[in-house]
Amino acid sequence: MPSQVVYVKDKHTKLFIPGPTEVKKEIIEAMNEWMFGHRSSTMTDLFTTITEDTKKFLGTDHHVIILSASGTAFMESSVMDCVDKNVLCSTCGSFSNRMADIAERLGKNVDRLDYEWGTAVKPEDVREALEKKEYDAFTCVMNETSTGIRNPLEEIGEVMKDFPDTMFLVDAISALGGDYIDIDAHGIDVIYTSVQKAFAMPPGLAVCVVNEEAYQRSKNASSGSFYAGLAKNIDYYKKKGQTPSTPAISLMIAYRAQMKRMLEEGHKARSQRHLDMAEYTRGWAKKHFDMFPEEGYWSQTVSTIANTRDLKIEELRQEVNKKYDMLFSNGYGKQLKEKTFRIGHMGEHTLESVKALTDAIEDVAGM
Amino acid sequence: MPSQVVYVKDKHTKLFIPGPTEVKKEIIEAMNEWMFGHRSSTMTDLFTTITEDTKKFLGTDHHVIILSASGTAFMESSVMDCVDKNVLCSTCGSFSNRMADIAERLGKNVDRLDYEWGTAVKPEDVREALEKKEYDAFTCVMNETSTGIRNPLEEIGEVMKDFPDTMFLVDAISALGGDYIDIDAHGIDVIYTSVQKAFAMPPGLAVCVVNEEAYQRSKNASSGSFYAGLAKNIDYYKKKGQTPSTPAISLMIAYRAQMKRMLEEGHKARSQRHLDMAEYTRGWAKKHFDMFPEEGYWSQTVSTIANTRDLKIEELRQEVNKKYDMLFSNGYGKQLKEKTFRIGHMGEHTLESVKALTDAIEDVAGM
Repeated sequence: MPSQVVYVKDKHTKLFIPGPTEVKKEIIEAMNEWMFGHRSSTMTDLFTTITEDTKKFLGTDHHVIILSASGTAFMESSVMDCVDKNVLCSTCGSFSNRMADIAERLGKNVDRLDYEWGTAVKPEDVREALEKKEYDAFTCVMNETSTGIRNPLEEIGEVMKDFPDTMFLVDAISALGGDYIDIDAHGIDVIYTSVQKAFAMPPGLAVCVVNEEAYQRSKNASSGSFYAGLAKNIDYYKKKGQTPSTPAISLMIAYRAQMKRMLEEGHKARSQRHLDMAEYTRGWAKKHFDMFPEEGYWSQTVSTIANTRDLKIEELRQEVNKKYDMLFSNGYGKQLKEKTFRIGHMGEHTLESVKALTDAIEDVAGM
Repeated sequence: MPSQVVYVKDKHTKLFIPGPTEVKKEIIEAMNEWMFGHRSSTMTDLFTTITEDTKKFLGTDHHVIILSASGTAFMESSVMDCVDKNVLCSTCGSFSNRMADIAERLGKNVDRLDYEWGTAVKPEDVREALEKKEYDAFTCVMNETSTGIRNPLEEIGEVMKDFPDTMFLVDAISALGGDYIDIDAHGIDVIYTSVQKAFAMPPGLAVCVVNEEAYQRSKNASSGSFYAGLAKNIDYYKKKGQTPSTPAISLMIAYRAQMKRMLEEGHKARSQRHLDMAEYTRGWAKKHFDMFPEEGYWSQTVSTIANTRDLKIEELRQEVNKKYDMLFSNGYGKQLKEKTFRIGHMGEHTLESVKALTDAIEDVAGM
């Protein structure tokens, strides 16, 4: 296969939606590789490299699984593997609700600790609920993409330490990699993300960090998942450094290249860059509009802005896209669609690229 | 992103393993595209195109799901969605055993209709087993990759028609697309494959065909899967022409390009090409060695050859790889590893490429 000119669209729409986010050109092009056997030493080398690099980047001593699927697969398997009967699901928006829906679909007894959209889960409420009833697990979203809330995971984790039999299962899909968390320090048993968010990779892979307690729970469970199964995947990795099923080789090659970049930047520096973008966006929002979510719990990767100027968001969005080739999101779901809008400042975005977007919005809205 | 020269390895190992198989250069390079939103019209266009093209290629009126995962995910979800209590699993090798293992892991009551490795599932045995006990589903592998057996799915399907309450769940992972089957004609309720086999695409996607009965069973099940859930995915497609979770966009772009090629060739012509390759390989095997599996049930996509010359298979394999950049497989598992070897003639291989491999084997083995 001789090198040759490959067609790549010159012009493209820059993504400021809360994922998929922008993927760097060289990461997309890294996928220009022939296939190889998934039981070969080339695969072992690739898979152990991306797994160990991910542990290093996240600074965790726990198990890491990289699976060919969306993060949703881990929402499901973590419940299948860790919950026998009762699970408490905190819900504060669409994606935390999805966790509860999945647990119900799996036939588990689900209690919801429900919050109004735009508000955060409070540690004292979690404690109260866990004191009332025994649960196999408690689920919480780190970053509620639909509302732009960042839940106080660290404080909730301190509560969870008092309930060691209740697994703490965390959906960090739009946050991990762009919002620093010390995974091993806060009683988190399972935490997972999708790579098309703050990792800034092409979608199709999910990453799950599993501590020893959750691994043991999964291993000894009377029933559980196979494809996204926690112990199933961890055991195969331990034994062979590979995946139980054929993985998405091309995406893992892209992962390797992007994770090297992430390691160079570092977890904390990457988080700081995201905070800088978030603070700029919040300042801009407060000057021209208002922030939608409860103060003190603003997401570091996606800002949800209240449409206080009563702009026609869908029109604005399309006009900015047309004139500037930049795409931001309207609010999530019917209720928030026009009442809010969302700017995803994650992955490889910079203060400059976010400023270019807010300039574009100002121009089109005539602000 | 200006067009530019992209690095692609000139030399590569040609894969004659039973998947991942060779992917054409232009299909790999089709992935050189920027990301876009998974809720955009671009996504709807891509996803409905590949879904409808797949229905057209397979000649089915049933529902088609294309999921970002390995085919193993559908092994799991088809059991989750279609089996309440009892499932009968025919086992005749490693992958059909995996289906039974997954069902057990899910906590179902599993009976195994077990065959010696290298022999095929017999319709009359299926009838006898189904007459003895009521099952929610019966599972069968179309092509047992570990032994090179092609089960008589069409005849088994005729038996299944007499047991309408028992879902017929078929793993066609290394066969579909390279071995013609009239899906709608033989009582098959669910049949799935992975794209890195006879579809000749980069791994990371799985395809599942679901008839109306299985869809209804899934929809009305008291518990089931979400991520790979049959009704979950079908309903989302019906409503929005998209996927419930963010899909592997790059892989779907490659899928679109390759499925266009497959449509041009046609399902039956593609199957005939595979049969030609299989017949050539069988002839060669019988001349120099012997076929391993039961006669009359030889796979059309992977030939398992008995090592009657007592060659050192692993050494031969490595030498052929080193000298000719071609890779075939040794036997599957400890028992067959040296007693058999496997040639995958699937996807985009041709009579010429398979002949080149057998010539290479003859040369290296000094035959």
